[in-house]
Amino acid sequence: MSPRSGRRPGSEDTKAEILAVARRLFAQRGYRETTLRDIGAAAGVDPSLVSHYFQCKERLFSVALEVPLVPAEILDLLRGGDPSRAGERVIRLFLRLWEGPPTREPLLAMLRSAVSDDRARELLASFLGAAVVEPVGTVLEGAERELRATLVGSQLVGLAVARYLLCIEPLASADPERLVAWIAPTLQAYLAG
Amino acid sequence: MSPRSGRRPGSEDTKAEILAVARRLFAQRGYRETTLRDIGAAAGVDPSLVSHYFQCKERLFSVALEVPLVPAEILDLLRGGDPSRAGERVIRLFLRLWEGPPTREPLLAMLRSAVSDDRARELLASFLGAAVVEPVGTVLEGAERELRATLVGSQLVGLAVARYLLCIEPLASADPERLVAWIAPTLQAYLAG
Repeated sequence: MSPRSGRRPGSEDTKAEILAVARRLFAQRGYRETTLRDIGAAAGVDPSLVSHYFQCKERLFSVALEVPLVPAEILDLLRGGDPSRAGERVIRLFLRLWEGPPTREPLLAMLRSAVSDDRARELLASFLGAAVVEPVGTVLEGAERELRATLVGSQLVGLAVARYLLCIEPLASADPERLVAWIAPTLQAYLAG
Repeated sequence: MSPRSGRRPGSEDTKAEILAVARRLFAQRGYRETTLRDIGAAAGVDPSLVSHYFQCKERLFSVALEVPLVPAEILDLLRGGDPSRAGERVIRLFLRLWEGPPTREPLLAMLRSAVSDDRARELLASFLGAAVVEPVGTVLEGAERELRATLVGSQLVGLAVARYLLCIEPLASADPERLVAWIAPTLQAYLAG
């Protein structure tokens, strides 16, 4: 518990304090080098309390940086259901997140800051590497698994930049179902190898 | 000729003056709304002199904003050679531009400023719409031509962001030939419809 707050652990203030410390440490040290133990120590609480609130480092990062997605959901999506439709499930999840303003705004903010600020860029790259590319790579089969995971990411980030950020027409106002029809096969080709 | 410069038309100063005026007018009015006539008038030279130096508006824009590519080159690429390998030609041109630091730097600068600055974003979107998406749409066959042209753009911009800007591994250090092998079929599917 933070000596500064003077409140009992378990309160909302303790959670907020842990999130503030997490944002600071992730930004200073990068995703890989920051542990739940470090964050607990810097927030003045037992690491088990950090785990109790946020379960794992990926989830703490997602909550602290307002990423509206925990990477484990991507893995569930890839493993659950018909493998030949994994690409379609991924693009549908992506569009669900980006089409809704409450989830689009923090994603846009993260993308903007990663493009314009070196520290934000390094943090996002280290998070994506450790929490998305490597785990997704272990779920895929065949050669060049991690490269293929990043190729999926390249099509998705390009869609985000072109549709939601640069607003290039007619992509910006295209019906989401048309995007599913065109992009699902691209993602499927990268995922299936 | 600009009264300020006091030099004869035909000098490098006149060219530089035209470029400075073009940058200003494109930024103020957008790509579509700016004509060679406007630029000539604002630079105090005959529009024919602007055409003499820069041939067409696309080329003037490319030179003024240091885009290391004239969109007409993309059209030549799509129309020239085996149609079933158009996707491969496009990704090879893209990689040639982005792998060389002298051409990569202005592209990165343009991407960064379009992401962080609304006016730069609008300018790039209006340029890409009028000078790339519409002409490429007329070269393609089948349904949803302009949408498919922007889908090609989405995969390319995503590759640029993930490989050269965010530097996500292993995409950032992947051999260009591996990228051709994976991405050419994606572009081909969008181009062929």
